[in-house]
Amino acid sequence: MSHPTRREFLASLSATAIGASRFPLRAQTKDVRIDAARLRQRIEKLSVFGRPAGGTFADGVSRTAYSDADIEGRRFVMAEMTAAGLQPRIDPAGNIFARRARSGTAGPPIVFGSHIDSVPNGGNFDGDLGSLSALAAIEALDAAGVATRHPLEMVVWAHEEGFAFGRGIACSRIVAGLIADGDMDVVWNGMTRGDAIRRIGGDPGRILDARRPKGAHHCYLELHIEQGGTLERSNTAIGVVEGIVAIDRYEAVIAGFANHAGTTPIAERQDAMLAAAHLTIAVRDAVTKMPGRQVGTVGQIELTPNSPNVIPGRARLSIELRDLSSQKLAAIMDDIRARAGEIAASTRTTIEFTRAMAAEAAVATPEVQQAIERAAESLRLSAARLPSGAGHDAQNMAIIGPMGMIFVPSVGGVSHSPKELTHWDDCARGADVLLRTILEMDRL
Amino acid sequence: MSHPTRREFLASLSATAIGASRFPLRAQTKDVRIDAARLRQRIEKLSVFGRPAGGTFADGVSRTAYSDADIEGRRFVMAEMTAAGLQPRIDPAGNIFARRARSGTAGPPIVFGSHIDSVPNGGNFDGDLGSLSALAAIEALDAAGVATRHPLEMVVWAHEEGFAFGRGIACSRIVAGLIADGDMDVVWNGMTRGDAIRRIGGDPGRILDARRPKGAHHCYLELHIEQGGTLERSNTAIGVVEGIVAIDRYEAVIAGFANHAGTTPIAERQDAMLAAAHLTIAVRDAVTKMPGRQVGTVGQIELTPNSPNVIPGRARLSIELRDLSSQKLAAIMDDIRARAGEIAASTRTTIEFTRAMAAEAAVATPEVQQAIERAAESLRLSAARLPSGAGHDAQNMAIIGPMGMIFVPSVGGVSHSPKELTHWDDCARGADVLLRTILEMDRL
Repeated sequence: MSHPTRREFLASLSATAIGASRFPLRAQTKDVRIDAARLRQRIEKLSVFGRPAGGTFADGVSRTAYSDADIEGRRFVMAEMTAAGLQPRIDPAGNIFARRARSGTAGPPIVFGSHIDSVPNGGNFDGDLGSLSALAAIEALDAAGVATRHPLEMVVWAHEEGFAFGRGIACSRIVAGLIADGDMDVVWNGMTRGDAIRRIGGDPGRILDARRPKGAHHCYLELHIEQGGTLERSNTAIGVVEGIVAIDRYEAVIAGFANHAGTTPIAERQDAMLAAAHLTIAVRDAVTKMPGRQVGTVGQIELTPNSPNVIPGRARLSIELRDLSSQKLAAIMDDIRARAGEIAASTRTTIEFTRAMAAEAAVATPEVQQAIERAAESLRLSAARLPSGAGHDAQNMAIIGPMGMIFVPSVGGVSHSPKELTHWDDCARGADVLLRTILEMDRL
Repeated sequence: MSHPTRREFLASLSATAIGASRFPLRAQTKDVRIDAARLRQRIEKLSVFGRPAGGTFADGVSRTAYSDADIEGRRFVMAEMTAAGLQPRIDPAGNIFARRARSGTAGPPIVFGSHIDSVPNGGNFDGDLGSLSALAAIEALDAAGVATRHPLEMVVWAHEEGFAFGRGIACSRIVAGLIADGDMDVVWNGMTRGDAIRRIGGDPGRILDARRPKGAHHCYLELHIEQGGTLERSNTAIGVVEGIVAIDRYEAVIAGFANHAGTTPIAERQDAMLAAAHLTIAVRDAVTKMPGRQVGTVGQIELTPNSPNVIPGRARLSIELRDLSSQKLAAIMDDIRARAGEIAASTRTTIEFTRAMAAEAAVATPEVQQAIERAAESLRLSAARLPSGAGHDAQNMAIIGPMGMIFVPSVGGVSHSPKELTHWDDCARGADVLLRTILEMDRL
């Protein structure tokens, strides 16, 4: 997809941007910091909503979108926003927005935030850290009496995690204009998506009013845990996200012939599981054959009839490939297809691929990446560029304007798990970099 | 297991057996043949019970043990037996027995038959052919006025196919004495096994009376479709079963680490599916490495969490090995274990095996194999020895006395499927060989 509005926007500010980046932050903003203790307290308080009965913080949360825990968690966050002097409002898509009162009016707002819904049996940092750090940043500016040229707007996105209603339909998509007729009528768990959005305070009848046009944001910023182990392993405090990778997902259907596992000689077999095994290894080989950070996964398999004493007649498996470059993904898939032809011949099966999903890469705006690097540098924090292998609301915001993401280390690279952990010091560092990046971007 | 009674029995008859095999059948039995047309009609009539609604013969049957279709099919067969002058009776385990009236009294009976229950969505020949050919053999002897020295007894075993109450609990096991306390209390589909056996006319309160001691049979004979493609491919009319293979079944549990399929670099992964793929290929390699007719199958796999965007953290898969030699199976498993150690190391997973099932081989009695060969030769039919890769009631009868099985070709080697097919000519040839083998064994 093309981004003419963003390009025009960037062209319009490039003259000032190049000069601005050479100067330090203004004197009154040099020492502004978020309140790390309060950030931690809020993350701990939010963790109660969706916590397993009788559990502790270490037991994580199941705060799936539209659940009671989600609704209670959103209520808690809105109460904290109100206490901080904000006036949270829920847009027709269910997203929570609030503008800082003491904001300038120069151009469109700088928008920043994340989400607070979780996967089932998830952790306490994915989304929560970015959402509560957005509030912490506004409070820090208020406390320091710092005014900005641009309006500032924090957001808590609804339904980021793919669980309810299938995957890839985060409510930030609606804001980016990605909504089709009938989307509100999809049924999951006995309720339509419209009902679900109404449940969290949205207004499905006015859903199109949730859309924001290209150019509506000066930029969108999001702090998030890395969810991989790259920053921790390299002892780097801040990740400057280069972009959110493209995802190509395929379903491979292998047709063999189901037959008796005792009476069918080896030479006569058309074993779909054996072909699936070779294909799984072919995926790994194709992914690792070329240099780079691309990944590929066979995460799902279904055999028919799936019985110990029957040769599998059919296998269905998922192949998921991710990289910033769609061209590279296509080349990997070509490699897999070629190998699948050989596997089908040698196992006397047929292998067919259908594309199950294709998500384009969302490249982070170079000027925003540079602003994050300057922010980290001003705090004497090490920083490194890296791709985001996971999807984020930021990829939808990239459709309507400049976008950047800040990553902080995940211990052991674990996420979507109660074991998910980012040290409190790293949380605070990330929030401070978010705050500084807001100020850096305000100057552009 | 040891078979002292059988050995003693064989020793006692060896003196006459060696001589007897050199002489042709007596004059009056030389031309005796089963009624092929009636056999076909009965197989077609029986196929109605359990046929899919609106289907034809080609749509197969679902006549699972203890179902209404099974009960109706048994009723049909008992009516045919009665019409043929037999007096069918149901033993406490639900098996149907009937002695030929015009039988001799020299020693224990020659028992022959098969089963009529089917797998879900099964075919019309597995079991049905052997059961109805047993009746055809008695009718042929009656029609020809042939008397035998030994009593003749046909049997229709109950619940041969493993479906209800899990696998491997055919009612012929009970006759062989393989029954434990509590077996009648196992619950499946809302009924106890005792209730199920009562439903088909058995008497679970007297279940132990169904047992027959070692030496109770002169021999047990069973005609069955091959269920493999060996006879058809080699254009051989009759298979002389060498024995029913031993089965070793293992469950392999692979423990890796479930993590995000986008954010976890390839080098950091502990992918249980990748390990399962390598293990599946290792099973095939270990089985085909040595010469012989052994087979090995990975028929079942379960991944956790089994989602396209999560690296599988756990895989559970079945490994089933079959051969007449248990020693060979143990050697193959040693090979698989060694390879699994390498796979676990290279994929950073752990792989553990537990034995899920071990069925010993049941070797067909050499004298019975020879009798089948003589019977085929007398009919100028080609015959070849081969193992049975599938389990049969015959393996339980081997525990209490001499046993032999006759195989006829399965088109394409297909079984447990509506596509299961044995040509009518081959059905008749098999039934004639069963008849001749009864007469051959009667002379021993």
